[in-house]
Amino acid sequence: MSFVPVPEDCDFSYANLPYGIFSTPTNKMPRPGVAIGNYILDLFVVKHFFSGPHLNKSQHVFEQKTLNEFMALGRPAWLEARQVIQKLLSKDEAVLRDDTALKAKALVPMSQATMHLPAQIGDYTDFYSSLEHATNVGTMFRGKDNALMPNWKYLPVGYHGRASSVVISGTPIRRPNGQTRPDDSKPPVFGPCRLMDFELEMAFFVGPANKLGDPVPVQQAHDHIFGMVLMNDWSARDVQKWEYVPLGPFTAKNLGTTISPWVVTMEALEPFRCANVAQDPEPLPYLAHSDNYNFDIHLQVDVKPKDATTPTTVTKSNFKYMYWTMKQQLAHHTVTGCNLNPGDLLGSGTISGPTEDSYGSMLELCWKGTKPIPLNNGETRTFLKDGDEVILRGHCQAQGYRVGFGDCKGVVLQAHPL
Amino acid sequence: MSFVPVPEDCDFSYANLPYGIFSTPTNKMPRPGVAIGNYILDLFVVKHFFSGPHLNKSQHVFEQKTLNEFMALGRPAWLEARQVIQKLLSKDEAVLRDDTALKAKALVPMSQATMHLPAQIGDYTDFYSSLEHATNVGTMFRGKDNALMPNWKYLPVGYHGRASSVVISGTPIRRPNGQTRPDDSKPPVFGPCRLMDFELEMAFFVGPANKLGDPVPVQQAHDHIFGMVLMNDWSARDVQKWEYVPLGPFTAKNLGTTISPWVVTMEALEPFRCANVAQDPEPLPYLAHSDNYNFDIHLQVDVKPKDATTPTTVTKSNFKYMYWTMKQQLAHHTVTGCNLNPGDLLGSGTISGPTEDSYGSMLELCWKGTKPIPLNNGETRTFLKDGDEVILRGHCQAQGYRVGFGDCKGVVLQAHPL
Repeated sequence: MSFVPVPEDCDFSYANLPYGIFSTPTNKMPRPGVAIGNYILDLFVVKHFFSGPHLNKSQHVFEQKTLNEFMALGRPAWLEARQVIQKLLSKDEAVLRDDTALKAKALVPMSQATMHLPAQIGDYTDFYSSLEHATNVGTMFRGKDNALMPNWKYLPVGYHGRASSVVISGTPIRRPNGQTRPDDSKPPVFGPCRLMDFELEMAFFVGPANKLGDPVPVQQAHDHIFGMVLMNDWSARDVQKWEYVPLGPFTAKNLGTTISPWVVTMEALEPFRCANVAQDPEPLPYLAHSDNYNFDIHLQVDVKPKDATTPTTVTKSNFKYMYWTMKQQLAHHTVTGCNLNPGDLLGSGTISGPTEDSYGSMLELCWKGTKPIPLNNGETRTFLKDGDEVILRGHCQAQGYRVGFGDCKGVVLQAHPL
Repeated sequence: MSFVPVPEDCDFSYANLPYGIFSTPTNKMPRPGVAIGNYILDLFVVKHFFSGPHLNKSQHVFEQKTLNEFMALGRPAWLEARQVIQKLLSKDEAVLRDDTALKAKALVPMSQATMHLPAQIGDYTDFYSSLEHATNVGTMFRGKDNALMPNWKYLPVGYHGRASSVVISGTPIRRPNGQTRPDDSKPPVFGPCRLMDFELEMAFFVGPANKLGDPVPVQQAHDHIFGMVLMNDWSARDVQKWEYVPLGPFTAKNLGTTISPWVVTMEALEPFRCANVAQDPEPLPYLAHSDNYNFDIHLQVDVKPKDATTPTTVTKSNFKYMYWTMKQQLAHHTVTGCNLNPGDLLGSGTISGPTEDSYGSMLELCWKGTKPIPLNNGETRTFLKDGDEVILRGHCQAQGYRVGFGDCKGVVLQAHPL
């Protein structure tokens, strides 16, 4: 227990302690912090407490504008940092609790903070690891018989995304103008996206690098996984459908990808490990691991039209539906020698559950526009309208407390006039 | 003419003046330089000469370890820099020519220099803009009837690549182990790539950024294009064939992409503009530009087996065969709002000409392994063997001088044992 009060339904419990980058009106320099209840522990202010063997010569990582250098240190340093922070915030530890002056400097009300991207993202990759999502989208784009490509169950299909367009929660997303072909018998047209969608995803940040040419074995993949965030992979479905053959989605995706600001560490998620999804056929040895590396993370998406007073929850899903694990994704990503760097972001792909109310995108929830969703304000939606705010949430539930991710949200702005 | 001697067949004429990042045994700090003949003009040493209105407060760009900050300044600054460098190196200008001490510091023999990546590449994109290449590969991968996808002539197809695995010329490339499916009636297998290939490409570096949500109109695209390099997009064809549906190539490409170290500016290439390839159907207005933005750049690829005394030229192509222009690529890349940053790299895709001896990859030259190429040393090749060095070259030819790109080379190392 911490001396900082944490409401029972708060995402940022004493068991969580996620890392983020924040600034305040009185100190505009972005710097690392840890969320606890409605406060942020300013790591720049308390950096001198990190005096253990792995961090005493690396306290500068808490003076940086991103978490990249901290991510680069690796798990022994991350574990040591977590211990120090747990101790500092403990109700039984006087050093911060009883030092009024230090506390006033070190604990910043979250309401005063502006959050920034937690890392400089060198490269961003998105996987496609939900069997239900791949089957649903494949059915709609290519028909039932070609829904799942022959490779899907043999390797975690993924593609390189656009790192520059990853933005922090709260950043508005402009509806794009783009090229689409609404009528196959006519030439394509240019204009505002008509099928603007969200994708409910999670993503993980990479820790220590591997060298080009040297794959990370699946048994060592955990050492390279720092922690997780929520991610909304905004998608222009009409653009995507026309452009994606044969090299994959491009301008349908690089219009913006939103992540939540707090990186929840694998240490905080450890108690919520759950059984992997059974894989048939058995994966090739380079992808095989016997331990559970799946996580029971409740996910939901709310949509709030501009004039609505309350949001509508349009789906509830769970990270545990992922077919491929993060270890398998990382091992596969590096298998031909690709070098990953600290701060790289690897997305899960849309996380759809087995039931129709657990699908992770409007495309699937409304089945290509054929089944409109009723909203609280009396309207319906098939795809997103201008002014709609999309809010992703996620948390692990324990007895009496949560380990949660906060919000990942963004509003759809109207397209630029042609 | 420059007082620095330039042999007639040298790529780095007085008309060229490409930028690169180099270091020397006596000054290991990477810094910007300009190639002239067999020398490098050290811009760090001569930075105080850049005293014009666009650069007098930005001389620090020549103290950086990358060209990103210089690229960010934009064309007025680039033009001013080029004028200063032309003047400094002119045979009619005494300031450097007659100052023995300054000359000894400012002109570094190229043979002493180690070249580095010219920019920190935030994002790397690869297009697919050669009609011949797309048709050839499409025919081999999907059959003649589905060779060219319906979208190909309406938009410059491209995909996001892996920025971290872009390396400088001379870096060895490890043959990857990966997942392939040699026999469609059996499960996939894991092992060394059997179909290791090069791709003859060029790429351009982006200058000033655009903001997320704000596309760059095709009419302004030139302002965002700094200069060009040669690029070898190494490809594991057997891995690619199995993995690429539906999201595009992934581990088949992120094993390494090699670029040449000298960035040839658009100013140096200006005299070699040539007619665009006729586009039918006419592109949509957002992709249409009436001026020529194609370039007559002679390209060739040599392969040199480990034990061979001389390399064999396996193909001769030309950049002018590109169907889509760089302006069109950049406008399309940003059309839905994608933000480009200084130092981003945009590749052309494999540049294949119309004849069988001008194809840009072994896959096409040997037509999927069915037509082996004879080498000078008596061997033949269908795909690359361990120890093979692949050397890309490119130049524009004028009366009595060249504007060239130097080498883009790399050796294939044997795969890690399983």
